[in-house]
Amino acid sequence: PARGREMAAWARAVRGLLLDVSGVLYDSGGDGGVPIVGSVEAVRRIKASGLKLRFCTNETQATREKFVKKLQGMGFDISVAEVTAPAPAACRILKERSLRPHLLVHNDLVPEFAEIDKANPNCVVIGDAAENFTYANLNEAFRVLIGMEKPVLISLGRGRYYKETDGLKLDVGAYMKALEYACDVQAEVVGKPAKAFFESALAEMGVPPQEAIMIGDDIVNDVGGAQRCGMRALQVRTGKYRPCDENHPHVKPDAYVNNLAEAVDIILQQL
Amino acid sequence: PARGREMAAWARAVRGLLLDVSGVLYDSGGDGGVPIVGSVEAVRRIKASGLKLRFCTNETQATREKFVKKLQGMGFDISVAEVTAPAPAACRILKERSLRPHLLVHNDLVPEFAEIDKANPNCVVIGDAAENFTYANLNEAFRVLIGMEKPVLISLGRGRYYKETDGLKLDVGAYMKALEYACDVQAEVVGKPAKAFFESALAEMGVPPQEAIMIGDDIVNDVGGAQRCGMRALQVRTGKYRPCDENHPHVKPDAYVNNLAEAVDIILQQL
Repeated sequence: PARGREMAAWARAVRGLLLDVSGVLYDSGGDGGVPIVGSVEAVRRIKASGLKLRFCTNETQATREKFVKKLQGMGFDISVAEVTAPAPAACRILKERSLRPHLLVHNDLVPEFAEIDKANPNCVVIGDAAENFTYANLNEAFRVLIGMEKPVLISLGRGRYYKETDGLKLDVGAYMKALEYACDVQAEVVGKPAKAFFESALAEMGVPPQEAIMIGDDIVNDVGGAQRCGMRALQVRTGKYRPCDENHPHVKPDAYVNNLAEAVDIILQQL
Repeated sequence: PARGREMAAWARAVRGLLLDVSGVLYDSGGDGGVPIVGSVEAVRRIKASGLKLRFCTNETQATREKFVKKLQGMGFDISVAEVTAPAPAACRILKERSLRPHLLVHNDLVPEFAEIDKANPNCVVIGDAAENFTYANLNEAFRVLIGMEKPVLISLGRGRYYKETDGLKLDVGAYMKALEYACDVQAEVVGKPAKAFFESALAEMGVPPQEAIMIGDDIVNDVGGAQRCGMRALQVRTGKYRPCDENHPHVKPDAYVNNLAEAVDIILQQL
């Protein structure tokens, strides 16, 4: 992968940026989080540059309103309208297909589904339910699924795990796999790395994939997913980045950067 | 698959029977269970016939002592020495390979590991932990695994789900899949359908596979597993049996029987 000057050739065509949030803008943990050094200023510089910008997150532990409020509290210039997140995308799918979900999600995400009919469920929607991933709740979601003639499981992301200040936690993907196996079904993933999810973020920004760059810390869900959509993708060495990511068997970022601030330095120099 | 008379040809060579327990001898539920009609008498008739007999179970919610006591309480002629179960098989593997387990198992199974060194764990052993499958315990087992240079995950069975009187429950296989995915590792399965597990049951009985019949309610773990070992296998239409099992894409039992009593009727008629 390229570094610095070598990015010049293709970075010059850029018109829009998609930013992952957790691990790029801030490090999450417990009830709060800490901004990553230089990221608050980097977001301001992107906005001042005239580049289009969209935040593309798999966050499902809170409504967008609550999530954005937390980031604003850290000093970020961000609004709900700039965020592409799995829950609203799932709601569009539920409405289109007349699906009534049984929800296995975080309590704080439930308001995103306020307008969705949840009576007599004909699908299961699983998100990063955290403390709601109890034995009883998993059995209940399983029973709803196995009771359907054709089980429909919609998963808000497929992450393996993430890091909080008190340690690593299993992410929604692990629980998705448990239900997939128990019911012999394949989940439909809404969120990164699903192609449709990146495409909706690009459409909202009004920029074609070849003129957009994704910046994220997750080699598979951010970098691999964006590249399969025809975008360039940078991996930051913050958040869940691990040195062994640089030997990933299938995914190579278009460039590595130490953090978001460095990525923005390099990209703005090309304009 | 054959029925009744058609079993004659190969059933005549039989010298030993392996019986699954839950769903064949009794239906489990809550703190107890109910014997399946005719099964208590069927076990007695097998023993009176001179056929070798061994109980081959994936039960991991209790020590063999407690499990056998429960069955004796229902009237079954069964002793601890006649039971092949995953926990003792796992203990042999742990000792052979100097593995020190972090246990994610049912509280009542822990005494089976009394003689095993569990300090500074270098593997994770997962069983049907039931109420112990909490969010905290799953994260802890995950952290132990992901912290190893080469994660070793030993799973006591790989069942998808089972039925109790209050409904279907996710079995150990679902949680095994969650940890496999999160850590990008393949679990080693101890218990049915692992070949080594059936082979140890046959060795304990002193009967070669072609002279033994497995009788179980699980099309994959009982029937498929035993057949891959060179045994004949019958599926009973009790326990977790479902009519759609008879259309299983890969596994065909050598015969179907309505229950254990009918299987024993037919087998003893051939002797």
